[in-house]
Amino acid sequence: MRTRRSLLDLDDLAVEEFAEIFARTTAFERGEIEKRLQGVACVNLFFEPSTRTFTSFNLAELRLGADVVNLSPRDLSYMTKGESLEDTMVTLAAMGVTVVVVRHPEDGFPAKMALHFDGHVINAGDGTHAHPTQALLDLYTMLEEFGSLRGRTVVVVGDVLHSRVAHSLIVGLHRLDAQAILVGPEALVPTSYERDGVRVERDLSAILPSADAVLLLRIQRERFTQMPISDDEYVARYRLDAARLGLLRESAIVMHPGPYNRGIELDESVLRFPGWRYSRQVLHGLGVRMAVLDLLVTGT
Amino acid sequence: MRTRRSLLDLDDLAVEEFAEIFARTTAFERGEIEKRLQGVACVNLFFEPSTRTFTSFNLAELRLGADVVNLSPRDLSYMTKGESLEDTMVTLAAMGVTVVVVRHPEDGFPAKMALHFDGHVINAGDGTHAHPTQALLDLYTMLEEFGSLRGRTVVVVGDVLHSRVAHSLIVGLHRLDAQAILVGPEALVPTSYERDGVRVERDLSAILPSADAVLLLRIQRERFTQMPISDDEYVARYRLDAARLGLLRESAIVMHPGPYNRGIELDESVLRFPGWRYSRQVLHGLGVRMAVLDLLVTGT
Amino acid sequence: MRTRRSLLDLDDLAVEEFAEIFARTTAFERGEIEKRLQGVACVNLFFEPSTRTFTSFNLAELRLGADVVNLSPRDLSYMTKGESLEDTMVTLAAMGVTVVVVRHPEDGFPAKMALHFDGHVINAGDGTHAHPTQALLDLYTMLEEFGSLRGRTVVVVGDVLHSRVAHSLIVGLHRLDAQAILVGPEALVPTSYERDGVRVERDLSAILPSADAVLLLRIQRERFTQMPISDDEYVARYRLDAARLGLLRESAIVMHPGPYNRGIELDESVLRFPGWRYSRQVLHGLGVRMAVLDLLVTGT
Repeated sequence: MRTRRSLLDLDDLAVEEFAEIFARTTAFERGEIEKRLQGVACVNLFFEPSTRTFTSFNLAELRLGADVVNLSPRDLSYMTKGESLEDTMVTLAAMGVTVVVVRHPEDGFPAKMALHFDGHVINAGDGTHAHPTQALLDLYTMLEEFGSLRGRTVVVVGDVLHSRVAHSLIVGLHRLDAQAILVGPEALVPTSYERDGVRVERDLSAILPSADAVLLLRIQRERFTQMPISDDEYVARYRLDAARLGLLRESAIVMHPGPYNRGIELDESVLRFPGWRYSRQVLHGLGVRMAVLDLLVTGT
Repeated sequence: MRTRRSLLDLDDLAVEEFAEIFARTTAFERGEIEKRLQGVACVNLFFEPSTRTFTSFNLAELRLGADVVNLSPRDLSYMTKGESLEDTMVTLAAMGVTVVVVRHPEDGFPAKMALHFDGHVINAGDGTHAHPTQALLDLYTMLEEFGSLRGRTVVVVGDVLHSRVAHSLIVGLHRLDAQAILVGPEALVPTSYERDGVRVERDLSAILPSADAVLLLRIQRERFTQMPISDDEYVARYRLDAARLGLLRESAIVMHPGPYNRGIELDESVLRFPGWRYSRQVLHGLGVRMAVLDLLVTGT
Repeated sequence: MRTRRSLLDLDDLAVEEFAEIFARTTAFERGEIEKRLQGVACVNLFFEPSTRTFTSFNLAELRLGADVVNLSPRDLSYMTKGESLEDTMVTLAAMGVTVVVVRHPEDGFPAKMALHFDGHVINAGDGTHAHPTQALLDLYTMLEEFGSLRGRTVVVVGDVLHSRVAHSLIVGLHRLDAQAILVGPEALVPTSYERDGVRVERDLSAILPSADAVLLLRIQRERFTQMPISDDEYVARYRLDAARLGLLRESAIVMHPGPYNRGIELDESVLRFPGWRYSRQVLHGLGVRMAVLDLLVTGT
């Protein structure tokens, strides 16, 4: 099996494929190419709630001319009639489904699907493991700003431990020769993250002056039984606000994968900050997903 | 924000735009124009159950060639991860969504969305407030019958108080110089509705001979904790049945926004009445919605 | 009403129409014809969970160029606001819906819909009654293998009593002059099934050497309050496994409508058996459904 390529994490891409995806993203955003997936059957299977990623993948597929089917997990025979995952994937392939986009609360679930699927699986977020298209759009947003990420410093703030976005981005930053600095309390950013190109820091204010880009993360309350840090303490130590924005270089940008909780990881001054790039990230999400779909299905 | 036009209630339309929408409705129904929204991203967001309006908007969008995404409210980050409504709308706009069609139990919810959305919001029914596309299709159905509504008498029967359909229709009738007569018990049709062009009456049989058109309403049980009138009394005083149909002029028509409850606000003789226009209303719903989408997105 | 044709069970098709559907299936699979339903509105209404059939109908409609709307039963006014089924169908027809594909737990529900619908109803499975498109794809899979079914012996194993698939297939086999042999315990395969062309047997091993094709069925646990046979006994007497596969002719094929439960009605040796045709069945499901949609909507 597995004769076709999947995108489970950024490890699945060669370095030169990053450039290829970004080039196609630009082309799609300019409207230079389109409808390249006409008649290609795409199934979206979201086992977790999603606004951004679900809508973005749907629009990317439709814009490419694909035939799009949204399956509700609760109606799957896999969930209700004891069908194995392997047999579910064999079935989808047999009826001509070429792409399955999946989000699932369990780490590695998309990889299990890909094992049995004669088609392309795209990971739209699995547990705390990976979210490769989000990382790609974050990288694209930074590249748009800086041209190259070589030697740039990207500060990631907050609940790194539970963030599939952070985990994928760390891989991507390393590939593009950028430095990642992870900032947060030990319970959210264990020292064990340290490796070549990845530093762990505790003091946000001290680190902000060296940042080219800051990526804020949402506290994923749904993944905690007990919060390791109070809201008040989090806000005091890690919230990006007017005072801390003043510590940034003039050229620095601030990003967030969304959804963001105003008052916790950022305050409203961030939304008015000239370097706030949230809308650019969302915009590039569409183009990046078109590019990934196109690369996987049509090949190089 | 709000650089693009929304349709929240009929007040949002100039009088000459009614004529423009109706002209386009006719053109769409004749198949003279189509696929004018190719590549335009439409999101449908129904926080309340719907068969008619949901299907009608979906088909209108597809027929215009739009890219259509149906979001399930229960899967929205807005509902599950504490994202603000403003940030949800900013996100949808950023990913290139041009139209959001929304139904919501809360009065004014679509207006709150429009406040933050760089695109077009179409109100598909909000609480007891407004349902402008339903009113437009009702008006179109009457215009098809009478040519003009100037000086015509339209009798609206039943639970006006909870009817967004009635509230929008009253606005529309006034714009087109028709007379509205609202009929029902005080608890459902308070005297406070009276104004220029709007009369309140209690005796249905007495008023039917003067009607050009009758619009029956469903008792919206889901909006009552205790019913202010028993079914038996309602039937006795307000149900349209064979006897009361006999009081109508030969040219009069009867309408209902649906869904109707047989045996309560009408009996089966109404369904066989030559002036029963329910199916015409539903048919025109599709054309009117295509026309509204087209007018908002492509402009005049 | 009922001026247009529905497919409620295989009885609705004349013998020569089987050949017509199969010819179109072949043409669709070869990509010789397509997009024949452009602008035709199809509504899918699945009151029971489904992966295979739901996805297959969706893709068939999209590939034919239809406008596709998936209605969630839980959001129907029929379910939430007391609208009658007749009025629901009148409404869908009025808004220009041409095809309704329906799955429902109640026997005869699609027939009730068709009674009031000025369009085509396609039964995607109703209770234990019928599942005509599944039977058509099973027949097509056998015809692909054998050219003709005249005089062929098809063994159906398991929970025939609750299987709408089996019930439709029995009709189809009779039409195409094949012999059906139903095998299982009395509680699942009552002797009352016996008629011209249909035999009931209890001993699977004894009957396998005479089979041209074997169709395995899933035990539909969701339709039992108490299981009439233990898993162990079922496995011992009716599971197809390596030993029983050895009793088959070399040319024999094995089919399953899916979803299958490994370890119960089959073991893994079946999945590696050269005559295992599950993936062919699923593949042909798409073509057969395109052919049925095409035949009903465009006529002969």
